[in-house]
Amino acid sequence: MAVKIKDVAKKAGVSVTTVSRVLNGEKYVKDDLKLRVNRAIEELGYVPSQIARSLVSRKTNLIGVIVPDITSNFYSTILSSIEETASSNGYNLLVCNISEDIDKEFKYLTIFKEMRVEGIVIMHEKINEEIRTFINKLNVPVIFSSVKPMDQEFISVIIDDYQAAYEATEHLIGLGHERIGFIGGDMRDITSGQNRYSGYRNALTDHKLKIVYEWIRFGDYKVQSGYDMMREILRGKQLPTAVFAVSDDMAVGAMNCIYDHKLQVPGDISVVGFDGSQLTELVRPRLSSMEQPIYEMGSVTVGTLLKLISAEGEYDSGGDIIMKHRFIARDSCRRIVNP
Amino acid sequence: MAVKIKDVAKKAGVSVTTVSRVLNGEKYVKDDLKLRVNRAIEELGYVPSQIARSLVSRKTNLIGVIVPDITSNFYSTILSSIEETASSNGYNLLVCNISEDIDKEFKYLTIFKEMRVEGIVIMHEKINEEIRTFINKLNVPVIFSSVKPMDQEFISVIIDDYQAAYEATEHLIGLGHERIGFIGGDMRDITSGQNRYSGYRNALTDHKLKIVYEWIRFGDYKVQSGYDMMREILRGKQLPTAVFAVSDDMAVGAMNCIYDHKLQVPGDISVVGFDGSQLTELVRPRLSSMEQPIYEMGSVTVGTLLKLISAEGEYDSGGDIIMKHRFIARDSCRRIVNP
Repeated sequence: MAVKIKDVAKKAGVSVTTVSRVLNGEKYVKDDLKLRVNRAIEELGYVPSQIARSLVSRKTNLIGVIVPDITSNFYSTILSSIEETASSNGYNLLVCNISEDIDKEFKYLTIFKEMRVEGIVIMHEKINEEIRTFINKLNVPVIFSSVKPMDQEFISVIIDDYQAAYEATEHLIGLGHERIGFIGGDMRDITSGQNRYSGYRNALTDHKLKIVYEWIRFGDYKVQSGYDMMREILRGKQLPTAVFAVSDDMAVGAMNCIYDHKLQVPGDISVVGFDGSQLTELVRPRLSSMEQPIYEMGSVTVGTLLKLISAEGEYDSGGDIIMKHRFIARDSCRRIVNP
Repeated sequence: MAVKIKDVAKKAGVSVTTVSRVLNGEKYVKDDLKLRVNRAIEELGYVPSQIARSLVSRKTNLIGVIVPDITSNFYSTILSSIEETASSNGYNLLVCNISEDIDKEFKYLTIFKEMRVEGIVIMHEKINEEIRTFINKLNVPVIFSSVKPMDQEFISVIIDDYQAAYEATEHLIGLGHERIGFIGGDMRDITSGQNRYSGYRNALTDHKLKIVYEWIRFGDYKVQSGYDMMREILRGKQLPTAVFAVSDDMAVGAMNCIYDHKLQVPGDISVVGFDGSQLTELVRPRLSSMEQPIYEMGSVTVGTLLKLISAEGEYDSGGDIIMKHRFIARDSCRRIVNP
């Protein structure tokens, strides 16, 4: 038979209400009562039902997380960091992998509401009007991690994507490259799509280099699309000497495509990625990449969310939280000597 | 103001109990009452609190999942499949990433109990006596996915690791290799450690090939350990012409080590992996590997768990569920012509 709260009360010689108050960590419970209750709990091996307790305290200690694709190394790394920070603060995760399916997202947000999560982390930026309205009505803090949806008022934990893409492009320019291709992301996304593309274009323009549309393609951040877009670029009349892809996954896809065409990285074409995921060290040659502080983004996301939860709307993060990026040169780029 | 159950009752002209019975899907509620309640729910936009409902019905629709390492492609792929199957059956996941930390596992199992999960999936095989006892007392179904802990009575969804490793080794023997190294897993694990090692050894012995201990090392399934173990093998007096690593991650680590030593895969050393994860197609040359049906293992795990949950102990899976493995030859092995 499972030990019940009334057994604890009997053992401790107090009322059920007192046990409940101790369990909920309420102030103004006399120390000797606390001691007796905790001793009884220990002796009986009582595990309080989180469900019953949350009905009283309204605390569920749950955070809902929406991940676009859990099999991506980038997202699973953020997720592992979110999990670690949440767990060390006594919070548990309801994890939802939506596979980029907006309908599934709506369903999960409804479940989050039912389960009374205390906060929500969303890791993709495609939200529609219906979802926006729903989130606004939810009355729990919501943070976007690593992305920023268009025209909206939620807090995002991101890097300066424009500046990071600008610097990644400048790295190639600094190595003497003048013909630099680009594999971008979805242009409906502000952070990873639009801002990174602008950074690339402006770096070229500022250095008086031509923008060649034959070398510019847009994928979906995944390996296969990097491969496919690179194949299109390789079909052109003249090849670029370098390609900048806005995700490490696409960069690896591009490298594989170059390899399968019997060309060399970086001998024939240099490749730069974006994210700084584990992939960069996994492939050969190692991939030079613009690093996002992936792990830190996860912990900062949860840290901020917990402040918002405990402040009940009174905490002001001062808008988006911008994390630091840094370029890590590995072995996928070579220096070019121009005539 | 949030819509409450009593608002629904008022609107539908029924008692709160009736609304509650409809919400819990109980039989013997008159159809016209059901209709009125459901119409009122729809009109008011009422979302029942899962917490309140679960106190009545004892159904939480939660499954607890313990993952050893969420950033591994192998586990995140099983997890995404588990998530998909659970979700399409109306179940949600509490996901716990334990980073191979047994203490953390115990903590999470306690949380699972508090949250009244209806079933548990565990994806690693190192469980101690304390955890075994705790699980046995939990009174909810537990399934091990992709692993089998030693000496225990829980159901596992696995492949025949011995046979799969035997066949992977035979693939190399069939290509003419006689000097075949091995990078194994933790020998405390039955499935991935012991059984795969036995399969390798017996394949060699059955084909009258020598077991050379200089070419046998044990890692922890991760990329870095594959790299490190390969480095040790490369320090030997004579090199093997092929290496079989019992995870794709370790196989890729081994390939990278070979590359960094200015040797060729498969020109100098052929490499075979195990798992059939996405990595196999991501690296160059593509990795030949013994494939586990990773995605199917996730869905079969949840399918079996749901049967156990709904049968309340009456369902008998007939022991472990053995899934089919198959070898996929890619580009990392070459044929050897022996003198």
